[in-house]
Formats: sequence, C-alpha cells, structure tokens
Amino acid sequence: MPKLWDETIEAHRAAVRDATLDTAAALVAEHGPASVTMSRIAERTGIGRATLYKYFPDVGAILTAWHERQIARHLDHLAAVRDRAGSPEEGLEAVLTAYALLSYEHREHHRTEIAALLHHGEHALRAQQHLRDFVRDLLAEGAETGAIRGDIAPGELAGYCLHALTAAGGLPSKAAVHRLVTVTLAGLRPPR
Amino acid sequence: MPKLWDETIEAHRAAVRDATLDTAAALVAEHGPASVTMSRIAERTGIGRATLYKYFPDVGAILTAWHERQIARHLDHLAAVRDRAGSPEEGLEAVLTAYALLSYEHREHHRTEIAALLHHGEHALRAQQHLRDFVRDLLAEGAETGAIRGDIAPGELAGYCLHALTAAGGLPSKAAVHRLVTVTLAGLRPPR
Repeated sequence: MPKLWDETIEAHRAAVRDATLDTAAALVAEHGPASVTMSRIAERTGIGRATLYKYFPDVGAILTAWHERQIARHLDHLAAVRDRAGSPEEGLEAVLTAYALLSYEHREHHRTEIAALLHHGEHALRAQQHLRDFVRDLLAEGAETGAIRGDIAPGELAGYCLHALTAAGGLPSKAAVHRLVTVTLAGLRPPR
Repeated sequence: MPKLWDETIEAHRAAVRDATLDTAAALVAEHGPASVTMSRIAERTGIGRATLYKYFPDVGAILTAWHERQIARHLDHLAAVRDRAGSPEEGLEAVLTAYALLSYEHREHHRTEIAALLHHGEHALRAQQHLRDFVRDLLAEGAETGAIRGDIAPGELAGYCLHALTAAGGLPSKAAVHRLVTVTLAGLRPPR
C-alpha cells in the first residue's frame, strides 16, 4: 500500500478512537457512568456497533482509554509549561502552579465514583510515577543551583509537593491555589 | 434501678460492642472483608447471633462503627499529644509529627478496598473536618505568636499541612516521615 493510504487509515482510526472517547466522556458527564452503553456510544457517534467492538471490547476499556488520554494530555501540558519557562527555578514554579490548577479545575470530576475506580488503575499508577519522576528531576536541578534545599532527597521532596498541591482540589478560588503554591514552594527552599 | 446496676449494664454493653468491633477487624485482617459475616463474628466472640443483631443490623454497620472508633482514638491521641507539649509551637510540631506517623503506620490498611469505602462515609468526612479545625486552631495560635506565617488564613494552611503529610503513607521509614514534617513546617514559617 502507498504511504499516503497508510496515513489515511491511521488518521481515520485515530478519529474513530477520539470520537468514541469524547462521546463516552460526554455521556458520563450528562447521565452518569451507569448510563453509558456500547449501543448509546455507537448511536451518538454514528459508528456502527460492530466497528465499535473492533476498537474496544467494552465500556470499561473505553473509559480507561479516555482516562489515559486525559492523563497524557495533562503530562504534555506540564512538559510544555516547563519548556516555556526561562530558568529551572521558574520552570519548577510554573509546573507546580500548573499541576495545582489542574487539581483545582478537575475537583468536581475527582469526587465521582468513576474517578475513584479509574485512579486505581495501573495506567494511573504509571502516570503518577511519571509525574513524580518529572518533578523530582526539576527539584534535583534546583538543588544543584541552590534554589532548592539539598538536605533531603529530590524524590522525597517530589512526594511532599505533589501531596501538598492536591489540597488545591478543596480550595474555593484560583487565588487560594496560588497561595498554596507559595506555601509549598517555601517548604522546598534551603533551610535558614 | 440502683445506679450500680445501670453502670454494670453500661459496662457490659460497651464490652459487647468492643468485642464485636475487635473481632470484625481481626477477621478482615485475617481473611479479607468478604469473609466477615454476622455468624462468624457471633461464633468468634461467643455472643449469640440474636444478641449481636440487637447491637448491629449488619456487617457494614459493624465496620463503620469500628472505623469511627479508630478515628476517635486517633483524634484523642492527637489531642493528648498537643496537651503534653510545652509551647503552642512545640504542640503544632508534635501534632503534625503524630499525624504523619499515623498515616505512615496505617499505610497498608489505607491501600485496601474497604478503606476506600469507609473513608467516603459521612463519619470520615466529619472526622476530617474536626481534624482540620483542630490543626487550624493550632496554626492560628502560632500566627499570633509570630511562629507561623500570618499572610495566609490558618484554614488554608491546615489544608496544606494535612495534604502534605499524607505523603507519609508512601514513605519507606520513620526517618523519612520526620524529614517530611520538617519540610512541611518550613512552608508554614513566616516568609523571609
């Protein structure tokens, strides 16, 4: 097959996949997770049921794939935020702020039953590890320049920050989220 | 009825209740939550099944009561830790350390499915609020003496600390827990 044809097929598959995930997420948001069935997704997307089953064995697989895509987008967002920052120290502050804002913006979603299920999946644990390593590396860079305390291993500091910033999910405003980032960063500075 | 008789009955009821909760918790630990039945609890405690049903309608009620008792003991422990401390500042450090050590010591328990269920119960939410208010009051006292930063409301700082300290559940040693408390406290100090 010519290369163009391959690319067309690939793009078509990605489009079917994306439409399926978007539709499943919309159905969950509108009517709750119990309402989502393969038939409803097929109907809403206009994809045939037989075709849908070639992509995903069941609704659970679709929701897991949707969650994986969300997480991947969030990690890409954090990496882009770091890349846009000037110094490593600015990068750390920008990344921690972006992470806290994600926790804040997804606070409603994270209170749902389905979130509790998805967050215990293996893909979620892998993403957490990835995020932790990403923040750990930023902290290690900061420790080298003296901006971050060097008396505690960067991996432990990463655990501290990420847990502290999940408090953003219970805050009432973005201003409060920025104050949380300020306090969390203060804990990371070299001791007086 | 004479007072002594009342007291004897009350003590007897408390003993039945405690034995039931202890036994249910032991069965969960030994064989998993699915294995716990009213009959097994009756058998193990030596309390008749009919009597057991007068105390608790089902296993769920027993596990909830057990969890409430655990939480109450933890809150009592934290209050005792504060009362033993000299200054308010020492009290805060001692309470945060004790809380982090509780998270650390219960880390295995908190990873179980049953914990996820119990932690979403109303009693758990009330206990969280109670704990938050308790820490907030300690922080407010500290802000008055200048030991704690006064630029951010004590309620927000309480949310920050309690979230940061839950990182203790993923730490490998008590020494790491103490380092986490050090970092968390550093975030609470007045800004330079």
